[in-house]
Parts: sequence; C-alpha cells; structure tokens
Amino acid sequence: MPYVNIKITDEQVTREQKSELIAGVTQLLVDVLNKNPATTVVVIDEVNTDNWGIGGEVVTTLREKG
Amino acid sequence: MPYVNIKITDEQVTREQKSELIAGVTQLLVDVLNKNPATTVVVIDEVNTDNWGIGGEVVTTLREKG
Amino acid sequence: MPYVNIKITDEQVTREQKSELIAGVTQLLVDVLNKNPATTVVVIDEVNTDNWGIGGEVVTTLREKG
Amino acid sequence: MPYVNIKITDEQVTREQKSELIAGVTQLLVDVLNKNPATTVVVIDEVNTDNWGIGGEVVTTLREKG
Amino acid sequence: MPYVNIKITDEQVTREQKSELIAGVTQLLVDVLNKNPATTVVVIDEVNTDNWGIGGEVVTTLREKG
Amino acid sequence: MPYVNIKITDEQVTREQKSELIAGVTQLLVDVLNKNPATTVVVIDEVNTDNWGIGGEVVTTLREKG
Repeated sequence: MPYVNIKITDEQVTREQKSELIAGVTQLLVDVLNKNPATTVVVIDEVNTDNWGIGGEVVTTLREKG
Repeated sequence: MPYVNIKITDEQVTREQKSELIAGVTQLLVDVLNKNPATTVVVIDEVNTDNWGIGGEVVTTLREKG
Repeated sequence: MPYVNIKITDEQVTREQKSELIAGVTQLLVDVLNKNPATTVVVIDEVNTDNWGIGGEVVTTLREKG
Repeated sequence: MPYVNIKITDEQVTREQKSELIAGVTQLLVDVLNKNPATTVVVIDEVNTDNWGIGGEVVTTLREKG
Repeated sequence: MPYVNIKITDEQVTREQKSELIAGVTQLLVDVLNKNPATTVVVIDEVNTDNWGIGGEVVTTLREKG
Repeated sequence: MPYVNIKITDEQVTREQKSELIAGVTQLLVDVLNKNPATTVVVIDEVNTDNWGIGGEVVTTLREKG
C-alpha cells in the first residue's frame, strides 16, 4: 500500500531504467517493511532542468557551466 | 482552503472529465467539512504510463499484457 | 490505480469525516473515469494551522483575527 | 537540505522568471532559517490550466470568462 | 539531485528500517541512473491509518476487520 | 493561485519563522510572476530528522556525528 514518488531531471531516462527503478523500490519495501507489492504504487516525475534548482541555481545553467 | 492533488495515468482524459473531477472533489469538501470552495485548489497530474508502477511493474507493460 | 492527496488544516476532523472523504473521492474516480477502486489510494494530510498560509498570512493568525 | 515545490499554471513562464523563483526561495530559507543553500532543492511544476481548479471550476474556463 | 518521497502507514517503523529505506533507495538511484548520492534527498512520511484509504475504505477499518 | 510546499526538518522552527517563510514566498510570487496573493497557498511540512535522508544517511545520524 505504500506510495513512492521519485523526482528526477528529465534527461533521457529510458523505459528500461524506469522499469528498474519501479521494480527496485517496490522490492525494497518488501524486504525492509514486508509491504504487499500488489498495492505498492510508484510514480516517477521527470522534471525539465529549467524547473529544477539546487544551490539557488537552475540545473540547466549548472549543466552549461559544466 | 484545502489543496487536493489527483494523480492519474495519462490516458485520454477529456477536459470535461477533468472538470467533473474538480467540481466533484470541491463539492465533497463542502459537504463533508464545510470548506470554502472559493479557496479550494485542485491539481490533476496526468502521468505517462511508462512512469507509473504498481506491483513492481510498469503500467505500460501491464497494459500490453492486457 | 489513482493516487489522491487531500491536504486540510488540522481542526478536529473526525474519523467518520475522513471515512466520507476517502469513500467519496474513490467513488468520484469510479464515476468519472471508471477507475478500479481496489487500487485507488487516498492520503489525507492534516496540517497545523501554524504551517498553512494563505494571502501571505498564517492561518492561525487569520483565525485569531476572526 | 530543504525541499521546495512550487506549483503554478503553465502560462509562458520564462527561464529567467524560473531562475528568480529558485534563487529567491533559496535565499529566503537562508535568511529565515539559516539553511545551507548548497543542498536546498527547488522544483517548479507548471500545470496546464485544464488541470487546475479553484472554486470548483477549471482555470481554463475561468480565463475564458475573463 | 533526485528527490524521493516514501509514504507509508504509521505502524511502528523503526529508525533502523527507515535507515535501510533511505540507504536502499539512494543506492538504487546510483545503480540505475548514476545519480550523485551526496545530493539525493529522501523524505519518509508516516501516515496515520485513519488518514489512509484504499478501495474506498479507511485502513484502520480494514485492519480491524482483519 | 500558486501552491507552494516547503519541507524542512523539524528542529524548533518558531511560529514567527514560519510566518516569515509564508509571507516571503507569497511576496516572491507576486514580484516575479504577478500572482494574486489572496489565493496563494503555502504549506510547510516539518519532517522528523529520523525520516529525512541525504547522501544515503539519516539526518539524525548526521547530526550525532556533528
């Protein structure tokens, strides 16, 4: 019954990688808390780098700086 | 003043259906808790089926399996 | 499979009222989008009025002003 | 280490404006709580006006009414 | 730089279990997406069973039914 | 109409500081995007340090290490 939300920058994440994240975090909740995987929901949000900030700066700018 | 976030898979939800969700949940908060609808905010997130997992599997894969 | 998060101020909401919110919003998703209620998750967050702001003011202060 | 999520309607917000939001809220957390900006994360979600409701109405409809 | 939010019911989760969840999901993001763990943030919300619904029912009620 | 969620660790934040955060972020949205403060909602979540992770470690543990 857990709900997990993963927010990452939108940088060419493949369907295979998303599948691994969903399988991995669901298994983690089984292993650590014995949660029922059937009702475990995982939602991945891919966020444009223009819309993500860290250290007070936009990630797009940080990427351009290298 | 309530804030409601509805996350659903992005599968051809119409503007009319979104309107019904927003009107319905706002009315529910009036009926149950006597909340002021004028400041009740509802945000609907439509999530790509590649980014939604349940039971450890990606919804896109579940849909393909039928 | 939808996920709904309802945020309201923490002001003596009863278990019965929470039950009505959960039943009501789940039914709304069945009625409008034909969603499966069995995997519809609803989470209610009750937020202290010190931690909720509207119009730039803390709700606790607005309540005191009447 | 704070995490801030800003949800706004998707109405031609520029990269410069997003940059000002990210810098401004990060600085606010430094000023008020002495938080470390290096690990302060800000995520901006731009939401389609069809998906945002207030007062029980869709924002797109409110905009059309003027 | 990812941000992960894990919502679970508030049922005597230990500090050790929380530590395993945080370490596990951070490692998963390193393994799958090569994310930098130093800026990966994980927040666990423990939600009262009165405030969690599934299948249109409050979890507290489901637990009582057995 | 914006909605802002600020998540910080639960470490003796005062009502005055919360008030400054709410006023400050509401004003920022007025200044940068000309948003209407009357319908701008801010919610502050204070999270137990046992429930917050960064760098794969629980914040409580990081605080103990100094």
